[in-house]
Amino acid sequence: MSIELNDIHALVEQVTDEVVGWRRYLHQNPELSFEEDNTSQFVYDTLSKFGGLELSRPTRTSVMARLKGHQPGAVLAIRADMDALPITEENTFEFVSSVPGKMHACGHDGHTAMLLGTAKILSQMPEKIHGEVRFIFQHAEELNPGGAQQMVDAGVMEGVDEVIGIHLISLIPVGKVVVKSGPFMAAPDTFHITIKGKGGHAASPHECVDPLLIGAQLVVNLQHIVSRNTDPLDPLVVSVTEFHAGTATNIIPDTVNLAGTVRSFNAELRKDVPEWMERIVKGITEAHGAKYDFRYENGYRPVINDESVTEKVRKALVELFGEETVVEGKPVMGAEDFSAYQSVVPGTFFNVGAGNVEKGITYPHHHPKFTVDEDALPVGVESFVGIVLKTMGE
Amino acid sequence: MSIELNDIHALVEQVTDEVVGWRRYLHQNPELSFEEDNTSQFVYDTLSKFGGLELSRPTRTSVMARLKGHQPGAVLAIRADMDALPITEENTFEFVSSVPGKMHACGHDGHTAMLLGTAKILSQMPEKIHGEVRFIFQHAEELNPGGAQQMVDAGVMEGVDEVIGIHLISLIPVGKVVVKSGPFMAAPDTFHITIKGKGGHAASPHECVDPLLIGAQLVVNLQHIVSRNTDPLDPLVVSVTEFHAGTATNIIPDTVNLAGTVRSFNAELRKDVPEWMERIVKGITEAHGAKYDFRYENGYRPVINDESVTEKVRKALVELFGEETVVEGKPVMGAEDFSAYQSVVPGTFFNVGAGNVEKGITYPHHHPKFTVDEDALPVGVESFVGIVLKTMGE
Amino acid sequence: MSIELNDIHALVEQVTDEVVGWRRYLHQNPELSFEEDNTSQFVYDTLSKFGGLELSRPTRTSVMARLKGHQPGAVLAIRADMDALPITEENTFEFVSSVPGKMHACGHDGHTAMLLGTAKILSQMPEKIHGEVRFIFQHAEELNPGGAQQMVDAGVMEGVDEVIGIHLISLIPVGKVVVKSGPFMAAPDTFHITIKGKGGHAASPHECVDPLLIGAQLVVNLQHIVSRNTDPLDPLVVSVTEFHAGTATNIIPDTVNLAGTVRSFNAELRKDVPEWMERIVKGITEAHGAKYDFRYENGYRPVINDESVTEKVRKALVELFGEETVVEGKPVMGAEDFSAYQSVVPGTFFNVGAGNVEKGITYPHHHPKFTVDEDALPVGVESFVGIVLKTMGE
Amino acid sequence: MSIELNDIHALVEQVTDEVVGWRRYLHQNPELSFEEDNTSQFVYDTLSKFGGLELSRPTRTSVMARLKGHQPGAVLAIRADMDALPITEENTFEFVSSVPGKMHACGHDGHTAMLLGTAKILSQMPEKIHGEVRFIFQHAEELNPGGAQQMVDAGVMEGVDEVIGIHLISLIPVGKVVVKSGPFMAAPDTFHITIKGKGGHAASPHECVDPLLIGAQLVVNLQHIVSRNTDPLDPLVVSVTEFHAGTATNIIPDTVNLAGTVRSFNAELRKDVPEWMERIVKGITEAHGAKYDFRYENGYRPVINDESVTEKVRKALVELFGEETVVEGKPVMGAEDFSAYQSVVPGTFFNVGAGNVEKGITYPHHHPKFTVDEDALPVGVESFVGIVLKTMGE
Repeated sequence: MSIELNDIHALVEQVTDEVVGWRRYLHQNPELSFEEDNTSQFVYDTLSKFGGLELSRPTRTSVMARLKGHQPGAVLAIRADMDALPITEENTFEFVSSVPGKMHACGHDGHTAMLLGTAKILSQMPEKIHGEVRFIFQHAEELNPGGAQQMVDAGVMEGVDEVIGIHLISLIPVGKVVVKSGPFMAAPDTFHITIKGKGGHAASPHECVDPLLIGAQLVVNLQHIVSRNTDPLDPLVVSVTEFHAGTATNIIPDTVNLAGTVRSFNAELRKDVPEWMERIVKGITEAHGAKYDFRYENGYRPVINDESVTEKVRKALVELFGEETVVEGKPVMGAEDFSAYQSVVPGTFFNVGAGNVEKGITYPHHHPKFTVDEDALPVGVESFVGIVLKTMGE
Repeated sequence: MSIELNDIHALVEQVTDEVVGWRRYLHQNPELSFEEDNTSQFVYDTLSKFGGLELSRPTRTSVMARLKGHQPGAVLAIRADMDALPITEENTFEFVSSVPGKMHACGHDGHTAMLLGTAKILSQMPEKIHGEVRFIFQHAEELNPGGAQQMVDAGVMEGVDEVIGIHLISLIPVGKVVVKSGPFMAAPDTFHITIKGKGGHAASPHECVDPLLIGAQLVVNLQHIVSRNTDPLDPLVVSVTEFHAGTATNIIPDTVNLAGTVRSFNAELRKDVPEWMERIVKGITEAHGAKYDFRYENGYRPVINDESVTEKVRKALVELFGEETVVEGKPVMGAEDFSAYQSVVPGTFFNVGAGNVEKGITYPHHHPKFTVDEDALPVGVESFVGIVLKTMGE
Repeated sequence: MSIELNDIHALVEQVTDEVVGWRRYLHQNPELSFEEDNTSQFVYDTLSKFGGLELSRPTRTSVMARLKGHQPGAVLAIRADMDALPITEENTFEFVSSVPGKMHACGHDGHTAMLLGTAKILSQMPEKIHGEVRFIFQHAEELNPGGAQQMVDAGVMEGVDEVIGIHLISLIPVGKVVVKSGPFMAAPDTFHITIKGKGGHAASPHECVDPLLIGAQLVVNLQHIVSRNTDPLDPLVVSVTEFHAGTATNIIPDTVNLAGTVRSFNAELRKDVPEWMERIVKGITEAHGAKYDFRYENGYRPVINDESVTEKVRKALVELFGEETVVEGKPVMGAEDFSAYQSVVPGTFFNVGAGNVEKGITYPHHHPKFTVDEDALPVGVESFVGIVLKTMGE
Repeated sequence: MSIELNDIHALVEQVTDEVVGWRRYLHQNPELSFEEDNTSQFVYDTLSKFGGLELSRPTRTSVMARLKGHQPGAVLAIRADMDALPITEENTFEFVSSVPGKMHACGHDGHTAMLLGTAKILSQMPEKIHGEVRFIFQHAEELNPGGAQQMVDAGVMEGVDEVIGIHLISLIPVGKVVVKSGPFMAAPDTFHITIKGKGGHAASPHECVDPLLIGAQLVVNLQHIVSRNTDPLDPLVVSVTEFHAGTATNIIPDTVNLAGTVRSFNAELRKDVPEWMERIVKGITEAHGAKYDFRYENGYRPVINDESVTEKVRKALVELFGEETVVEGKPVMGAEDFSAYQSVVPGTFFNVGAGNVEKGITYPHHHPKFTVDEDALPVGVESFVGIVLKTMGE
């Protein structure tokens, strides 16, 4: 007998209070990336109580739980991230962060709570599940090189057929779910450039090699990469965000330090950009007799959602919530290390609305007043449970 | 009976050891600009012992001594500056600075000692002097707005006909004296610019107004002032020496802070430059939708040596030291508040070589290892005494 | 009885030799935009011979033919463009242009021939057609403001329900058909900028306002529009393609003339760009004391293919040619005045491959050696006939 | 018996009408550089009539006349240039140019007439002259490589001890004579730069290497040479005066052509500038993947007036005209091939005022309405005659 929509709603309702409670606990007790010791222990202990799950610790501060269905079938991994940010919370509700300088300002507390709720519901019905559901409680999404790759390296994707993940988004109204096939989130690389001129008295520029002006020319010339070198149909951002030079009005400094970020989707373009950048850095500094250091670091891969998995998820969500709720997404230049899973297994990453203008829940992610509408939590749980039951259920 | 060259040499020799001692005492006990309390008291006390001088305190940390000749005649002011710099000395001789973080790194200790020696010699021969010699021991040459203008405001130039001053220069070999009529040292103005854009996430430049790129364009566009707007025969320097923007690779900052210096001789050009600069700042920021603050501060006036006084001084120096010793100078873009005196009285400022490659005395001014060859001290004293006796003597 | 695929193939085969002949005749006798007098007469005369068509002349050099089916139904317009380009042909085949300086270098000869072949076939079977097929032989696609808008203004779209059009593309291999829903071809606007400085002798830049350097700064600053002001997900091109200044090495010119093109899809962005451009032009010229003229002209609208019409056409083409032949297109920054029809009626514009590496047919459009593989002509005819019969047939 | 001032005035007055007549004849019959066939023949014939001169033809279109004094002494060369410019005259007086497109728009007609007048006077008094006066009627001052160097190569300076020359200046009031020792006129070099990018469709910048933007960056980056690389006390001009790129709004061109001039006095700086320029051209083009051609051509040497000759001339002119008439000059960034003579013989070049606001004689040199106040002609003759008689006379 297959599971009806009404049944799923009812199951989710039964755990919602608990999910809200877990989220509040986590919100009050934030831990930074790679330091999620208590958080992961809390998740481990909570999962332990559900029964029927095979628990393990892929890394020191992460948790994996395997739920083996009684029927044969494919393996679906569902991932939540657990780390907080080095931000001092400015909210005033009761369960604000108890740790100065640390805050769940990106909704990972909600992600973790939703996945716990999902695990609780599903762990009670292994007989209905064909295949295996693997719950991935990941550490360190916020900090390069990210926890996802470490989880992959630890083998959590072994045997997995598909992977899904959710992000709560405060800028999308609660009640909406956003799905998109193909490129969804960009690859976020970083660069650091030092221009080495020759300092001296500001009244004698001809005895110096002025690195500040050369740095300015460099910033200006780097604009060519987006405006001229790149296919206009290929989204790319090159932002120089740091420029530091000089300590006194009468001294030309020796060096200038620049840094910034590059965001892209296209893998070939992503390879080209650092080469183009270094060619420009080299040309501009040589034009004016200076030297340079150029360092380029790849960040996460872009999130490219698998078409087949995405359409399956979209279909399940439409059945769960109706056409109006499930919105077609657009790519964003932000980043996610969920892409590490997608590099080995087809998957899809989608967004659950968590904003509410009437409740004043409008602050963007990473803002000291960021929060989520807790009405989004059951939507997330229902999405996970529904996708499992509709694609792996009887 | 007129004074012979040999007599002058002999007079100077008699005070040289004392002059060296004074210089070493001052070197060991540096005081910063506007804080020359002990230094000025030392000068006052030393002058008091010479007798025959009318002493006064034009400002809290300066000293003026008037020597009235027994014959009627013009009034000549001779100026020395007394302040030290906020630099930690790295020399190793016996009389290094005893005050950490303060150092006579510009030779003002020598200037003061030389003028004391001059006062001692001349105070012993009022009967030979036509007119008055006024000794100006000035504070705060190193720090805008400078002590010279305060001295002028306090009336030290009242009744003065001509004014002269010396700078010891470590980059000129000891034994040389450098004289130049006309423009000699530049006016050193400063500017501070803030560009007010709109910060945001580095992945969404279109939601920001990127002040860093605008700042870079501004630095580039400001080059036009020297390269295009200014008569190529009019020396001008516009150096942007400080550029500070940004704190993270993924955040476009709200504002950028720039600062720098402008050096000029031509008074009309000096008035034009801030207008040209602000026009460029306004145009570039408006072009890209940003706002700005522009602050321009005039520093000292340029040192423009009076032709007649300079030629009189040159003639006296050639008689004292010979043609080979007295070198024709070139303008420099550095600055001196001696110009404050020249704004009310014709005068000349000249340089006395104090460098010595063989002795390793080659460090530039304001360097932690700067020093002067003490053989320069009697040259300076002889210059002052000689000029007085040859132009105001019997 | 419905028409079978085999029947359509057979019908097309019967007219192919004639279509090739028409194309060669047109190729030999090119006429420029708005001068298609003989071409349109040839089309008119040819259509006259088919019988069963209502012919008219919407404008002096265009032709419309209406084929009214014997069954009631919707009205489908099919458009071909007929004008040639001011290029001197460098091909050597027998039917090269007989008019020096004029050439069918964009394939419009083929478009016209294909639509004639389509009209011939369909005019023989009015009894099978539900509704009306309207054949639009348009003049002046190559020259702003374009013939399409004139045709629309003349009423050719009155009563039309849907419109379709084809472009032969030499860079797509013959045998492929490229279809795309949504944005397909960009809006091609143009701009002209004059910078008014003050000329003079090159040795006295300070007596001039150097428009050449200001023009250079302008070109550099205009890069910000694409690199910073525009959503990276919104394709945009701003190309300055003309820069003319100066006549002698020793004279700074009075003025500089710049021109170029802007390509966009997004209507809001298209409105923003000229405002951003003028803000930059104003800011940069004011920064340096110059004046300016800025002229911005909108070109054709972007070609945005209607989703419903496109999917209907895609389905018909897949049935005709198979999945492998019908390729999903990508947007291109090139332009087409087909968009004028789409502004009043839903429609789709698609590409038919006409290149052939083995035959050396690889030159890009507008090249003096451009041509099309004539094997593409029956593909085009079959596309048109097939779409009509499959969507409007019995 | 030495010659009195009054005598010289009287001698000049006697030839003034003739000098004016010669100037008008030359003005009506202008010949371009290296084409002065009739002009030089006219000069030769006129000189022939004076008697007492040894005439020769150093080059096809130049004339040399030697006047050997009856007393032994030094050799003084006096130079006038004879060529006209490719300008269409817009004056309306009676003796305007009779040759369309050619015009004496720089005063060389006056120079030639004045030197003829000088030769006539002096040729009548060889007995009063110690040494030799050598009259140099030079061709081709206006066109690089200039006639002066050819004259030197032809030996006209052999045996010469000193050389002098005059330029009439319409921007200096008639009645003034301007003399300056040291650097007086700049070295005028030229450069041509081609940037080789890769052209293509303006809608596809990523398939091109946009030479127009690279050219713009180059113009901007070349500003550093004056604003940063050069001692602010060393006058330098780098003017890019020509920038030509592109033929259509929708085509990115293949190449860009730039040209301009460099003006300098300092020989070392003059060597550095082309190296700095090429370093910048190389760096900027390499930064953006383009190639380049860079051609730099040295023009005339700078006019550096010999101090001793200048002071001798100044003294003579003050005696002739009084202190008020003889003004101290300033360097100008314009150029003269008189410097070729100065490279082998000490000499001085000075200016004679030829402007007159009341008469409307205010147009700059090389202007279609340029002319000289003919009252300047006797001033020039008197200067030459006076200098000869006062320095070489009895």
